[in-house]
Amino acid sequence: MATTDAEQIFKEFREHSAAEFFKKNRQMLGYSGAGRSLVTIVHEWVTNSLDASEEGGILPDIDVSISKAENNRYIIKVSDNGPGIPKNFVGKALATIFAGTKFHRYMQQRGQQGIGAAGCLLFSQITTGKPIFVKSSIGKGRAYSCHIALSTANNKPIITDMADIDDKSQGLSVEGEFADIRYEMGEHSAYEYIRRTALSNPHTQIKLTDPSGQEFLFVRSVKKLPARPPPAKPHPAGLSTNDLLDFAHASQSRKISSFLVDTFARTTSNKISEIREADPSIDMDEDPKKLTWEQAEKLVNAFKKVKWIAPDAGYVVPIGEEQIRIAVKNILSPEHMSVVERRPRIFRGGVPFIVEAAVAYGGGSGKKEEEGYSGNILRFGNRVPLLFDSGSCAITKAANGIEWRRYGIDMETQPVSVFVNVSSVYLPYSGVGKEAIAQEDEIVEEIKLAVMEAARGVQRYVRGKQAANFNAGRYKAISRYVKQLSKDIGDLTGADTGRVEKKLNDIVKKHFPKAKEGEDEEEPAVGSEVDVEEEA
Amino acid sequence: MATTDAEQIFKEFREHSAAEFFKKNRQMLGYSGAGRSLVTIVHEWVTNSLDASEEGGILPDIDVSISKAENNRYIIKVSDNGPGIPKNFVGKALATIFAGTKFHRYMQQRGQQGIGAAGCLLFSQITTGKPIFVKSSIGKGRAYSCHIALSTANNKPIITDMADIDDKSQGLSVEGEFADIRYEMGEHSAYEYIRRTALSNPHTQIKLTDPSGQEFLFVRSVKKLPARPPPAKPHPAGLSTNDLLDFAHASQSRKISSFLVDTFARTTSNKISEIREADPSIDMDEDPKKLTWEQAEKLVNAFKKVKWIAPDAGYVVPIGEEQIRIAVKNILSPEHMSVVERRPRIFRGGVPFIVEAAVAYGGGSGKKEEEGYSGNILRFGNRVPLLFDSGSCAITKAANGIEWRRYGIDMETQPVSVFVNVSSVYLPYSGVGKEAIAQEDEIVEEIKLAVMEAARGVQRYVRGKQAANFNAGRYKAISRYVKQLSKDIGDLTGADTGRVEKKLNDIVKKHFPKAKEGEDEEEPAVGSEVDVEEEA
Repeated sequence: MATTDAEQIFKEFREHSAAEFFKKNRQMLGYSGAGRSLVTIVHEWVTNSLDASEEGGILPDIDVSISKAENNRYIIKVSDNGPGIPKNFVGKALATIFAGTKFHRYMQQRGQQGIGAAGCLLFSQITTGKPIFVKSSIGKGRAYSCHIALSTANNKPIITDMADIDDKSQGLSVEGEFADIRYEMGEHSAYEYIRRTALSNPHTQIKLTDPSGQEFLFVRSVKKLPARPPPAKPHPAGLSTNDLLDFAHASQSRKISSFLVDTFARTTSNKISEIREADPSIDMDEDPKKLTWEQAEKLVNAFKKVKWIAPDAGYVVPIGEEQIRIAVKNILSPEHMSVVERRPRIFRGGVPFIVEAAVAYGGGSGKKEEEGYSGNILRFGNRVPLLFDSGSCAITKAANGIEWRRYGIDMETQPVSVFVNVSSVYLPYSGVGKEAIAQEDEIVEEIKLAVMEAARGVQRYVRGKQAANFNAGRYKAISRYVKQLSKDIGDLTGADTGRVEKKLNDIVKKHFPKAKEGEDEEEPAVGSEVDVEEEA
Repeated sequence: MATTDAEQIFKEFREHSAAEFFKKNRQMLGYSGAGRSLVTIVHEWVTNSLDASEEGGILPDIDVSISKAENNRYIIKVSDNGPGIPKNFVGKALATIFAGTKFHRYMQQRGQQGIGAAGCLLFSQITTGKPIFVKSSIGKGRAYSCHIALSTANNKPIITDMADIDDKSQGLSVEGEFADIRYEMGEHSAYEYIRRTALSNPHTQIKLTDPSGQEFLFVRSVKKLPARPPPAKPHPAGLSTNDLLDFAHASQSRKISSFLVDTFARTTSNKISEIREADPSIDMDEDPKKLTWEQAEKLVNAFKKVKWIAPDAGYVVPIGEEQIRIAVKNILSPEHMSVVERRPRIFRGGVPFIVEAAVAYGGGSGKKEEEGYSGNILRFGNRVPLLFDSGSCAITKAANGIEWRRYGIDMETQPVSVFVNVSSVYLPYSGVGKEAIAQEDEIVEEIKLAVMEAARGVQRYVRGKQAANFNAGRYKAISRYVKQLSKDIGDLTGADTGRVEKKLNDIVKKHFPKAKEGEDEEEPAVGSEVDVEEEA
């Protein structure tokens, strides 16, 4: 058997850039299928506009226009009234994979990876060969326009036609021509994405112009921006040795004690004393830049022995119970609903997060099936609607892991909607397409607790409705059977069919006395809940 | 309202490396949860060993050892008898994100991204701070060992303790210490992964030593390597304008005509003439390096007007019908099965792929539930078992999109296993973790057709079994009801309960004459299939 020399094999060894990788694997960024690809473009540009406007302290006004061009192509344009992008950053901001303002900071924002905008540009280039057209005004009469492309070989922007323009307004507008996309209606459409975005961000105004020219205006119902917290300090609970080491090596502090106080939340000089007591072998005067793995591990173990105050709720800004109630009423007009807002928790790395959940029943809740209904789950991450990859999402895993029967809820057959928003300074997505939250144990657990709490809030109402429906249905089925049986018994015994039927019906009513009163004869054991709420 | 200047915001602008990105987002590489993370490490190292041995023309012997270390850590070591890695490439091969021998070639292999091995190293570094230990022998007495780490700031390897060693054998061994992982048993375990790998690669021998010290040896049942085709030429059908442009700009040919013949499959000088006829405005003597988007688009449109011979089956090597039959018999010992191997198809970019499917019923098929069974889907991509992210997989989408009722199959209640392997020179995965095949339309469609064909092969058998079971079950249920009813009728009419019961049973038997004979009284309409097979 011929063998090939290792050196022969390694003649083929190459390196490639991140841009080349994602060009070949654009499905990983969400460009998978014509319908989804269009929604991905809208999603990336709209989330950037929202983040930018909020960061600039401006109530967002966003304009999305989708129009058809020849050869089955589309022109998509998104404009905002945000702070714009300075000339010297525009190439990197919109056309470089892994570059951005958010990756290295613990701030609650929608974008966090430095990929999204470059991905849109890449997709336009791949499908039409054209660059995107950008107009940016950063106020004070400073405005420019240009075309931007991305050189995949080296992950660098190519800017052409840069020109100063006369524009007193403020904001950014990006426009691209795309093929291999399709404007659709329905559950996974751009319209639905924008509608849900407007509802989870009531301070936003969004206008959508669809390919037929029809305009949809989602008006803001709140005239105040959500609170904008400063970058969060990571919390020591849940910090890994590796994280601590990275922070230490990047620190400007001279001593470990000051490094800890400067870098981490809830770390006061009192806490430093407690940590010293927990492990006296740790030298708090050491230079953090010289921290070794073993020393970092000692610190992490000492952290575990100390009591920490829960993370500051202020770093993470949830939508808010009142806003969710309004939003869910607007989308679903349910018969009954329950909203729950949980306290902040931590997942790996000392990262705080907050889960909000609502369970809604009836009205427009759930999904209409051929016969009857089924339940559905509306997922949000940092107020961004998550429409795809639900199988990989922590929210889906949590919801599917709940014993809905305990609450009298059947997700297979009832008009139920479960609404979940997870807010965090850094959401761990399951993929670079950012359509699902990674199924990290602490996050899944917390979502379960939140949804179960919301389910408890509707269970009495739901059980009542379902009992009434169920018994009515069962009674009907048995009555039909009784008719047929009466006939057969008549043939069998020679008795009068009408009399037999009457007597059988009496027997049935004896077994189902409450059928007409609408109460479930099998009362669930109240207080049989097994969910135990975690103390902070 | 205070606004923040764009320049103020962009003070925070940074670039980060791919390594930093995946360090922060390791869940995207499959390191999500302790159980799955362990399987990911085994998966990445084993697939590299398989690819290397096959590329070297060597029947693979792979040794996987998983042992516990202190502090809840594990030591994982994978050794092979492959060609090894030359000293000057070992850092880049094992410790650089986006570097490898396969990314730029259209060859059917398991690894294709240049991420897997570096991801393992990264994960070890993150969880224990330690480098991995490598021993490589490339034959002829040339062997060395070293430690390798990855500098995330710049995506570069850090090699320490490089030493020549005395070793006459051949092969590579990689060993790392990991925390945050857990050895589990069950459906998503390393054992199951290796078992399925051995079965879809019958030419391989794999030994697994688990943390208890127990050894499992999966012996090879085939003493021949699978055929190893040369790198595939992409096929013009399904080629996008962008792909053609990239190929043209990278071409060494002087003219477009020779570029086409050299680069693409099934492209002869006859075809060139046909393309000229289809669009005489195309200048075949042009320099391919100067090809514009518009010219490339013309070519792609001309390709569509020409008839192409289907792609060479030789570039894609499926497992093979006979091998699958043996494998499925070994794993499942089914009562009945049907195996289907389809012809090669193309998906976007002119990439050939082949789908093989099997449907198995009974024996060890399906999943045992509390009461009864349910169906399950065994997924493979290029012979690699896919255990996770099933919700995002083309195979899952295809299988769930089938109307199983037409074949008398119920995936909710029957012991059915569906086996699918998709082979290709480039499989589009849904995420960098490579656990699911992207739901590209052409791939999902082809899998559906394959599985439906296999389902047709078992439907007669399954319907027969199910009818027998069903009627037996229904008869039993009614008999129980008859007992209770006889008693009530006795109370009602004063008739003798025993006599009433006998007569009711006679009525029942009249309605279910065939219940005891095991035939379904409702014959399905044969020939009511709506799946239409595509012609090549």
